Amino acid sequence: MSQTPDKAVRTYIEQHRAAFLDDLAEWLRIPSVSAQPDHAPDVRRSADWLAAKLQETGFSVAEVWETAGAPAVYAEWPSDDPGAPTVLVYGHHDVQPAAREDGWDTEPFEPVVRDGRLHARGAADDKGQVFFHTLGVRAHLAATGRTSPAVHLKLLIEGEEESGSPHFRQLVEEHADRLAADAVIVSDTGMWSEDTPTVCTGMRGLAECEIRLYGPDQDIHSGSFGGAVPNPATAAARLVAALHDEQGRVAVPGFYDGVVELTDRERELFAELPFDEQQWLRTARSHALHGEAGYTTLERIWARPTAEVNGIGGGYQGPGSKTIIPSTAMVKLSFRLVAGQDPDHIEKAVRAWAADQVPAGIRHEIVFGSATRPCLTPLDHPALQSLARSMSRAFASPVRFTREGGSGPAADLQEVLGAPVLFLGISVPSDGWHAPNEKVELDLLLKGVETSAYLWGDLAAHWRDVP
Amino acid sequence: MSQTPDKAVRTYIEQHRAAFLDDLAEWLRIPSVSAQPDHAPDVRRSADWLAAKLQETGFSVAEVWETAGAPAVYAEWPSDDPGAPTVLVYGHHDVQPAAREDGWDTEPFEPVVRDGRLHARGAADDKGQVFFHTLGVRAHLAATGRTSPAVHLKLLIEGEEESGSPHFRQLVEEHADRLAADAVIVSDTGMWSEDTPTVCTGMRGLAECEIRLYGPDQDIHSGSFGGAVPNPATAAARLVAALHDEQGRVAVPGFYDGVVELTDRERELFAELPFDEQQWLRTARSHALHGEAGYTTLERIWARPTAEVNGIGGGYQGPGSKTIIPSTAMVKLSFRLVAGQDPDHIEKAVRAWAADQVPAGIRHEIVFGSATRPCLTPLDHPALQSLARSMSRAFASPVRFTREGGSGPAADLQEVLGAPVLFLGISVPSDGWHAPNEKVELDLLLKGVETSAYLWGDLAAHWRDVP
Repeated sequence: MSQTPDKAVRTYIEQHRAAFLDDLAEWLRIPSVSAQPDHAPDVRRSADWLAAKLQETGFSVAEVWETAGAPAVYAEWPSDDPGAPTVLVYGHHDVQPAAREDGWDTEPFEPVVRDGRLHARGAADDKGQVFFHTLGVRAHLAATGRTSPAVHLKLLIEGEEESGSPHFRQLVEEHADRLAADAVIVSDTGMWSEDTPTVCTGMRGLAECEIRLYGPDQDIHSGSFGGAVPNPATAAARLVAALHDEQGRVAVPGFYDGVVELTDRERELFAELPFDEQQWLRTARSHALHGEAGYTTLERIWARPTAEVNGIGGGYQGPGSKTIIPSTAMVKLSFRLVAGQDPDHIEKAVRAWAADQVPAGIRHEIVFGSATRPCLTPLDHPALQSLARSMSRAFASPVRFTREGGSGPAADLQEVLGAPVLFLGISVPSDGWHAPNEKVELDLLLKGVETSAYLWGDLAAHWRDVP
Repeated sequence: MSQTPDKAVRTYIEQHRAAFLDDLAEWLRIPSVSAQPDHAPDVRRSADWLAAKLQETGFSVAEVWETAGAPAVYAEWPSDDPGAPTVLVYGHHDVQPAAREDGWDTEPFEPVVRDGRLHARGAADDKGQVFFHTLGVRAHLAATGRTSPAVHLKLLIEGEEESGSPHFRQLVEEHADRLAADAVIVSDTGMWSEDTPTVCTGMRGLAECEIRLYGPDQDIHSGSFGGAVPNPATAAARLVAALHDEQGRVAVPGFYDGVVELTDRERELFAELPFDEQQWLRTARSHALHGEAGYTTLERIWARPTAEVNGIGGGYQGPGSKTIIPSTAMVKLSFRLVAGQDPDHIEKAVRAWAADQVPAGIRHEIVFGSATRPCLTPLDHPALQSLARSMSRAFASPVRFTREGGSGPAADLQEVLGAPVLFLGISVPSDGWHAPNEKVELDLLLKGVETSAYLWGDLAAHWRDVP
């Protein structure tokens, strides 16, 4: 008697689990930090490693694509069925900066498994979630007896996501013909919790800037001059303090222009999720809730635009004291954007606001990084049902719908390729994205493999449902 | 025919100028930065060097005095005239931090002479101004034919002034018997300009603190959590922004309690000084005036208390971006105090203010460094006339009166020893105290030597005038 497909998938995964994890650990050892120029060779090594591994997996095409910045990896595994839909999987192989002294219990680029968790920078964001597709497609083939995937499978794994994807849009535009797809699967998000598998329907966008403030031409003595000239660190602080009003709303004029407000139905769906606010606070490692008045925590992080200061610096920060008025100060700000907001408009608004705030005698300049647009998939899109079904099989549980507070270049793919974007992620909030001791739950990682193994067949079978 | 005393002093100084400058350069090469623990051995080396040099100069006693922190140097050169007054010279042998990359044109601890200026960290603040007394006393002896000074001369040169003199008060109290003096000469201030010699009548006090703010237990992802928890960098910025009101007044409740207001006569004297505000701005390397409404620039820097942020830091300050809510942030604040303000009261007021400002979910702690009290000498004190006369002889010019915006432990000496404090300084505002490329004008340094050479005789001769 032959195995059921689910059993066959699970058996295949179990048999190949050890080699899969060994390979992933090898990849995680490459510190592919795109934000730090001295790690550029590592980002390249990461791309080369992945291309070679995808070829070994069975992809007929596996190429390193150059950009003006860090390289991306592109791969193809066509279906024998010429009428099959084409699916493009998106992820990234670069990671956030990480150093042991930031609070890691072990070396961030020396993966370790503790208590069923794989700890390393990139374990969840995003190498682990890219890599589960390599075993997923092989499990799909093994369980179905196919010699090629049920869909024309393409992968695009970029190398600059953690730096705001500055060249991604151009890369997608240049290669739009080869990237053409009927649907995009973004594997760079998370789900509600270990017990509540969810499908994400949208991501916030992101605009980032650094504001540099220049006061005296050099540090000057605070006794000789203090109290009589403007201090750029004070100006920096006042900018940050002026960023929000007393209601927690972003006080930059024009910031909320065009914002797509939450519908009552969406607010109801969010409210139905088993949200334990105290548990969420513990996951956030934070000690109070705080934010825009009139919205719940989930609404604040998923569906409301925000402004945060990611870094501030100026003057003497060493031990002891130094009685100076510093010459310069700077703030790094990031703005999360929701559907309806335009990054170019945000940049103009922030520039006008800052120019209005900075006092006489302080010169300022603002450098914006590349922005990421917000992205939202309709709740009733049939392809979402296909993804929810596959995830439900893997998790043996119904699937709910969420949004993602983080940002990714999904909107560029949607815009350039004209394809709907679906989000398949198995990471959970406690995974510590961008934080010390980032990890991925091994059980969930393997559920990701399993979801990937079911998805291609389900998508191909139900593609006729897609309008 | 014998030389006039003034000519004899000048000739002696000219003859010994080269050796004097060589010795000073040797001292300036010792990076005696008291605020940086790794320079502790250099601060000790500086003390040892000075004690040996004072002994070589002729002081009969030259000792290194231990404190719980950095060592001080004490020296004595008694007068043969047992009825002579006793004068204690105060200065410091430690210096501010300095690094080439802060904007120095040359190595800060490798003295160079360019265009009649000696550049090095400590050239003006305070090694140069301590050291001129060594040649001054010898010129005094040579010109008068005396074998001992006209006053019982004592020197106390501390090693922690740039760290807020945390152990100075205790040191003075412990050695009050040996330090006993009829007058204190503080050589750690400046004068109006090269063309306008002035005597300073008071210094502002100083209270310093670092406020540390703790938000999430680790850096967290600004996409996943941003907009829903408090950000400690925002809290830090809001503290700094709340430090001043719209009138430029310090907004800490109780801050102005007890402040001795300027008299009309003092405001007149300040207004009579040849003050070129644009030139002052250039010296301040600043691009606008800014401060407490209702006061002139001189009043703001000499006679009004102030608050400045000397450093602020939190989150990611490296290249590129890092989309986090930082775990911690900090601000370093300093408060300049004027006569009538009590540092203990200021500390209490700042603690209460900060506790009131910091939002829920952010933990904070405040660390105050040791404070320096403000100090003011009556305008009509006869000893001030003695100092003004000596300076007038050296500069061949009348002498005016100012105050000093900076701070020193002069008030402790006044309080513990019960002696009036006089300020003898030849530094000018462009000397760049605490800034890159600190320098001393060689001409003025030698006028300092000359003033010191005249002062002991004048003070002894006019001591009967002192009430």
